[in-house]
Amino acid sequence: MSLLVVGSVAFDAIETPFGKVERTLGGAATYFSVAASFFTHVNLVGVVGDDFTPRDAAIFRGRRIDITGLERAPGKTFFWAGRYGHDPNERVTLATELNVFATFRPKLPEAYRHSKHVFLANIDPTLQRSVLEQIHGTPRMVALDTMNYWIERTPAELREILKHTHILMINDAETRMLSSEHNLLRAARHIFGIGPKTLVIKRGEYGALMVHGGGIFSVPGFPLEEVHDPTGAGDSFAGGFMGYLSGAGKLTDAVLRRAMVYGSVMGSFAVERFGLERLRKVTPREIDARARHFLRLTQFRL
Amino acid sequence: MSLLVVGSVAFDAIETPFGKVERTLGGAATYFSVAASFFTHVNLVGVVGDDFTPRDAAIFRGRRIDITGLERAPGKTFFWAGRYGHDPNERVTLATELNVFATFRPKLPEAYRHSKHVFLANIDPTLQRSVLEQIHGTPRMVALDTMNYWIERTPAELREILKHTHILMINDAETRMLSSEHNLLRAARHIFGIGPKTLVIKRGEYGALMVHGGGIFSVPGFPLEEVHDPTGAGDSFAGGFMGYLSGAGKLTDAVLRRAMVYGSVMGSFAVERFGLERLRKVTPREIDARARHFLRLTQFRL
Repeated sequence: MSLLVVGSVAFDAIETPFGKVERTLGGAATYFSVAASFFTHVNLVGVVGDDFTPRDAAIFRGRRIDITGLERAPGKTFFWAGRYGHDPNERVTLATELNVFATFRPKLPEAYRHSKHVFLANIDPTLQRSVLEQIHGTPRMVALDTMNYWIERTPAELREILKHTHILMINDAETRMLSSEHNLLRAARHIFGIGPKTLVIKRGEYGALMVHGGGIFSVPGFPLEEVHDPTGAGDSFAGGFMGYLSGAGKLTDAVLRRAMVYGSVMGSFAVERFGLERLRKVTPREIDARARHFLRLTQFRL
Repeated sequence: MSLLVVGSVAFDAIETPFGKVERTLGGAATYFSVAASFFTHVNLVGVVGDDFTPRDAAIFRGRRIDITGLERAPGKTFFWAGRYGHDPNERVTLATELNVFATFRPKLPEAYRHSKHVFLANIDPTLQRSVLEQIHGTPRMVALDTMNYWIERTPAELREILKHTHILMINDAETRMLSSEHNLLRAARHIFGIGPKTLVIKRGEYGALMVHGGGIFSVPGFPLEEVHDPTGAGDSFAGGFMGYLSGAGKLTDAVLRRAMVYGSVMGSFAVERFGLERLRKVTPREIDARARHFLRLTQFRL
């Protein structure tokens, strides 16, 4: 069963206390699909400009990623520049040039229209909606990411797409903003009322929290000595999470917990190097070893 | 084996989004000893003024807490007033009146001088040192709490007492300040070089992290719908942690992990009501149930 992802493919300029890169491939759909491809087959829908070269596309080759849906448009690819401090939450955006992404209208190739597992990365809720409308039948598993911009500016459109969403994956500030509740458990109940029955709250270095009808599960951030580049951590988490779920093909509590762990594993690898440098080299054996490391990090007996 | 605690006994005035109390018994040694008494016998050394009534002392009665070491001095008891926002980290101190605590010189009753397990709550490092000097022989387990004030103002004295400390229990900001390292793993290595071989980092709503030679263990904060009063959470955590360790009598990795869980359990109860209201009513059965809840919150299988 393939996993459909719709979102940004971008070039990033990144500065952190550990270094600087002028132009590295990034974007939510890129991090997501590379991370997810270790667990399942991925179909990617996005847009790039004519500055996107075969060398850039190399990241997708030799992986279970289909880029038939990666549209090429005249103009430049989405560009983002940012700087991080020692505290990864201190992120300063230096430039956001939407370029071809400004007029992006997702078009699903016919082969993608029977998708049962869908991840709608952080884009305009109206476009997220249009993706679902292009799918024949009802997907079994729709997960969605969004951000403060859409929560504030397009609340009605966001609520509409959330009615069709099973899993909402956002950070704690977004959770509070969307629900107008400071407490995360109350916020989760509010969000269940809008639509999604599973809420995954990404908390950066503090890990992630999942709340659903079957209970609450918490996974810590992986303690790393050096976080070289936090870019893409959340999207890599989402990729590991959804990739694992899609591969498992069911949404039991035990499977969701493992998905949280594999999401954390992929997020932790992503930040070890700049851009996709670490994720592009990670091996299934390393993924398994880090998942076992998460076991040692959290397990106890009473 | 008894557990010796030396620290503050205070009256607190507390305001939170859930209410307000004008005068409730508090102080690090109070929260610590009540929490620890569920797991071991506690000997308390502290000082109160003549406004401390038998009614105030009732909290210690019927528990395994010896207050022979609770000195009475002429004057008023230490008083603290503070206000919290919805985010418990937004704490505003409205008043700190040291009163009899200003001239507190801990004096150990003879019966306490053979203590093998000691918790030095957050007081002047010179006083913490004087406590150890009054103990005959070398304690097997010394844990210590401190704060930014002592890290900045008495760094030499703090380093001296840390040489005799096995377990340092501080928050993440204090960890970074003490080690001049932002990264917590590097900070831990720095601290191991000063003395303590086990570092317990308290992270409030995000839980706690333990780093020692045998590895790293992370326990999440317990998700509560309402945090009525965060006062004493860290001291209750320390009480549950040290109480469990002292009761177990050994420092293996498995025991330390369980101690982290019982510390978290006691901290989570403490914040459910104002002051000691919840801790004074909690039952061993409730403690066991919440520890099992921590299991459900964190456990997964690969």
